Amino acid sequence: MRMRYKPWADDYLKEHQDIVDIDGTHAKKMGQWFEKTQPIYIEIGSGRGQFITTIAAQHPEINFVAIEREKNVMVNILRDVLDHSITNLKLICNDAVELTEYFNSHEVDRIYLNFSDPWPKRRHTKRRLTYPTFLAIYKEILKGEGEIHFKTDNRGLFAYSLESMSQFGMYFTKINLNLHEEDDEDNIETEYERKFADKGSRIYRMEAKFHGH
Amino acid sequence: MRMRYKPWADDYLKEHQDIVDIDGTHAKKMGQWFEKTQPIYIEIGSGRGQFITTIAAQHPEINFVAIEREKNVMVNILRDVLDHSITNLKLICNDAVELTEYFNSHEVDRIYLNFSDPWPKRRHTKRRLTYPTFLAIYKEILKGEGEIHFKTDNRGLFAYSLESMSQFGMYFTKINLNLHEEDDEDNIETEYERKFADKGSRIYRMEAKFHGH
Repeated sequence: MRMRYKPWADDYLKEHQDIVDIDGTHAKKMGQWFEKTQPIYIEIGSGRGQFITTIAAQHPEINFVAIEREKNVMVNILRDVLDHSITNLKLICNDAVELTEYFNSHEVDRIYLNFSDPWPKRRHTKRRLTYPTFLAIYKEILKGEGEIHFKTDNRGLFAYSLESMSQFGMYFTKINLNLHEEDDEDNIETEYERKFADKGSRIYRMEAKFHGH
Repeated sequence: MRMRYKPWADDYLKEHQDIVDIDGTHAKKMGQWFEKTQPIYIEIGSGRGQFITTIAAQHPEINFVAIEREKNVMVNILRDVLDHSITNLKLICNDAVELTEYFNSHEVDRIYLNFSDPWPKRRHTKRRLTYPTFLAIYKEILKGEGEIHFKTDNRGLFAYSLESMSQFGMYFTKINLNLHEEDDEDNIETEYERKFADKGSRIYRMEAKFHGH
């Protein structure tokens, strides 16, 4: 993702620690952070946040958490939360590998992975967000019936993820191999999605769960 | 598949019962039917047999079985077997649901499903060769480490099969979402494949195994 260094980002995030966790203050206390006790859906790698802010505004009956490690990008989400007074969306500025530090076991109802970095080189396989080490983290924090919703324009990452997730003991409840030619009225587009779909690229999507979880 | 009624098909097959099983003569005695004791790979729905005759000629160290219920199509395979004196390929003229009548438990090393009928209508879902009733048959006759190799140009059937197979407890060891743009030097084309690829259609392919089999 292109991004500009914003020298004011640090201060801006620090001023809004009621919305953004920058130092683990809310670790293992995510539930109490929200106004209401209701299901928790998280997005890992939210980027500028178009998806998560849209879905949070559409679904006040869900608590959303955006996880994004880049502060220079996170400030965009924070601004949207403030501008639209969204109360059911909190932000965590940290890496996906730290998720078990924030969430209790089986606390999360759904995980969204949208247009994650494909890390196409074989030597970077371990960095893909559907590599087994990450799947183990998701299994730990997801409820038994919890779901992963995955969307990408990258054919290689999608094929890899189907292999990796099925080998880990996951199964797929819905697969779209060309989302924009199929029926999915609930689809919320991300910045990337619009750009790629406009260029004629296919968007791949799946919903997945853990066997015997 | 387009096919012409061939009044002579019945007699032609009957004359070559050393190669074609038309009445279950070799049921549960498949191993003895071949000259050599070696791994068994079967193809379900062989059509005119371009795939299975090609691979059988390439791999004399494997015993192949073509399963095809249409006699008017099966005669094409028989003619090729005779013309090229292929000794490691036998033919079964029957339906896939009857497979457990022919093979013993865990006797088969690999199952090929190439360009199976997609049965796109929802009310025909049960007829798809990756519907759970068929997967149960495959699990019964396949060895523990046995594989299903599946290839299709039909996006809907491929997505359905990924869902159905993963839900049944299978996992994928290799997935190609656009075979002809990816590396697969071992790919053997079928009649359909060439036709569809020439029209610019994508070919989807996967290799799958059963968990804890």
